[in-house]
Amino acid sequence: MNHIVIMAGGIGSRFWPMSTPEFPKQFVDVLGTGKTMIQMTVERFAPLCPMDNFWVVTSKDYVHIVKQQLPHLPEGNILAEPAMRNTAPCIAYACWKIRQKDPYANVVVTPSDALVLDVNEFRKVIGRALDFTVSGQRIVTVGIKPTRPETGYGYIATGALEGDGPICKVDSFREKPALEVAKEYLKAGNYLWNAGIFVWNIDTITESVKVYNPDLAARMDVMAQAFGTADEAKVVEEVFPTCEKISIDYAVMEKAPYIYTIPGDFGWSDVGTWGSLWTLLPHDAHGNAVVGENVRLNECRGCIVHAPGASSVVLQGLEDCIVVERNGRLLICRLSEEQRIKDFVNGR
Amino acid sequence: MNHIVIMAGGIGSRFWPMSTPEFPKQFVDVLGTGKTMIQMTVERFAPLCPMDNFWVVTSKDYVHIVKQQLPHLPEGNILAEPAMRNTAPCIAYACWKIRQKDPYANVVVTPSDALVLDVNEFRKVIGRALDFTVSGQRIVTVGIKPTRPETGYGYIATGALEGDGPICKVDSFREKPALEVAKEYLKAGNYLWNAGIFVWNIDTITESVKVYNPDLAARMDVMAQAFGTADEAKVVEEVFPTCEKISIDYAVMEKAPYIYTIPGDFGWSDVGTWGSLWTLLPHDAHGNAVVGENVRLNECRGCIVHAPGASSVVLQGLEDCIVVERNGRLLICRLSEEQRIKDFVNGR
Repeated sequence: MNHIVIMAGGIGSRFWPMSTPEFPKQFVDVLGTGKTMIQMTVERFAPLCPMDNFWVVTSKDYVHIVKQQLPHLPEGNILAEPAMRNTAPCIAYACWKIRQKDPYANVVVTPSDALVLDVNEFRKVIGRALDFTVSGQRIVTVGIKPTRPETGYGYIATGALEGDGPICKVDSFREKPALEVAKEYLKAGNYLWNAGIFVWNIDTITESVKVYNPDLAARMDVMAQAFGTADEAKVVEEVFPTCEKISIDYAVMEKAPYIYTIPGDFGWSDVGTWGSLWTLLPHDAHGNAVVGENVRLNECRGCIVHAPGASSVVLQGLEDCIVVERNGRLLICRLSEEQRIKDFVNGR
Repeated sequence: MNHIVIMAGGIGSRFWPMSTPEFPKQFVDVLGTGKTMIQMTVERFAPLCPMDNFWVVTSKDYVHIVKQQLPHLPEGNILAEPAMRNTAPCIAYACWKIRQKDPYANVVVTPSDALVLDVNEFRKVIGRALDFTVSGQRIVTVGIKPTRPETGYGYIATGALEGDGPICKVDSFREKPALEVAKEYLKAGNYLWNAGIFVWNIDTITESVKVYNPDLAARMDVMAQAFGTADEAKVVEEVFPTCEKISIDYAVMEKAPYIYTIPGDFGWSDVGTWGSLWTLLPHDAHGNAVVGENVRLNECRGCIVHAPGASSVVLQGLEDCIVVERNGRLLICRLSEEQRIKDFVNGR
């Protein structure tokens, strides 16, 4: 059976005050569609398996939000992290849980806050990846055909095609590149953006963690003994925070030899910056992108405005600015300075 | 006995959203002092008479706000206008009421939303004016010694000194002048700003209305027959809206021959524009004026920020802008365009 693991523990600090540590981006209707990012994520995967096979790993502080936004998700499928430990412990926790329920599970792991424009194409790609991993020791990471020399994403250097394709071996993973390097990647033609979506069967991922990060696997084995018992929450609370903070990329992907990628071309974005959100939203004649019903612009150009909850917003004479209002919190910042928002909010 | 009439019916549309038709400027803590404009106005006059002699004329929609902000004011001293009819009907209503209670009243009429910096000096000036009007047919309008060629105020051309002064006859009233004219007024030396504060005894003002606007006086006489009866509210509701919309300046001041002025030098402002508010507030090293505890500025210059109720405001890279947040309403506008705020809000 297919299972979907949704990682929803991020705090989205780059998007304050649309996203706050109390109510981060994955739970926000970022695009003004009437659905939050995590709701759109679930919808995207919905045809692949029943709701009982969806798993959401999140901070214990967000469990109530997940329940509210995904009312059809069984409560036992919400896995609460007592502490943030990066993606490897997060994914291991979910996979050890799934293995206990379904030792033949075929699994997709996905972020909760990315955007896909062509959902049908996306489902086809994921379906192919799942076909490929249903048996055998294979890990697939979904690659995105790059459309611009983006410096905000990691890249995948692809190797030999697997049979007739489109799946191919991963040659190597590359960190977020400088602009010049990104341009070379684009020209070379064999580089894909790393979407952080992984596909594998449950045997492969648990074995891989055992081989390449035995310490993490050992802690998961301890936790797993308590799964389904009255002690589960207590043991997770004790053991999970002792796991090393480590990404799945570093813990497994960069070490295992059986890593593959499938190129996708379905309009993907991690919606990681206000600038990327601006490109995803419709614009008025002056290049303004607005989310919110009650926003009026006068002589504004190139702005992004996010104020869906505001009762009335009137702006005049702003250029290339971010304007965000949420629950009495307000940010106005030049788009060119958006990487400093974290610092502004932390008072640095 | 002295009586104070506070006119508090304005809707303050130039200051949206700090001031809204539901909760206008006079009821707002504009300066961030912890007191609203009307509370500061009452405090300014407090030593001149007991609270029983204060009268607030306001829209019926604002009566509940007046009760809340001035809990010691007798309820019967809140006069509710069923409709806005400019200052002459407003003042006549209050003075006809006062006459019934105290036929020897000596009266000050004042706006509810102006600012006085030197309150002691202000009280001295008002005290002198009251001494001057306690007997005899004399109307005093308070003049402000101009400190700049302001084009936002009406001016008073002063005539001959009355005795040793400082009170003098009013030669004429002048509308808001063009800048060049205002400069000439300043050079001439005998021009004062018109603060819209009037002092007279009750006999003088009621007689003046009778002589110079008999229609208004007749309607007030009809209303007065119902004062103190069970029908009072009903009759006011019927008669008051039939009064002509006319200012006290036009109805009386520009016609009666016994108009005097007393020059005041106590730091006065009608706080009529964001620009004037900016000049009244303290500034940081970059010329920003901020009302609100939770406001952080980064690379902002010459801005005025009013967001006392916001839980967190972060601004970056704004110059010469007005930024206002109140109850989920937001305005950002260049200071140079502030006269257009009314239009923005009305969707023109």
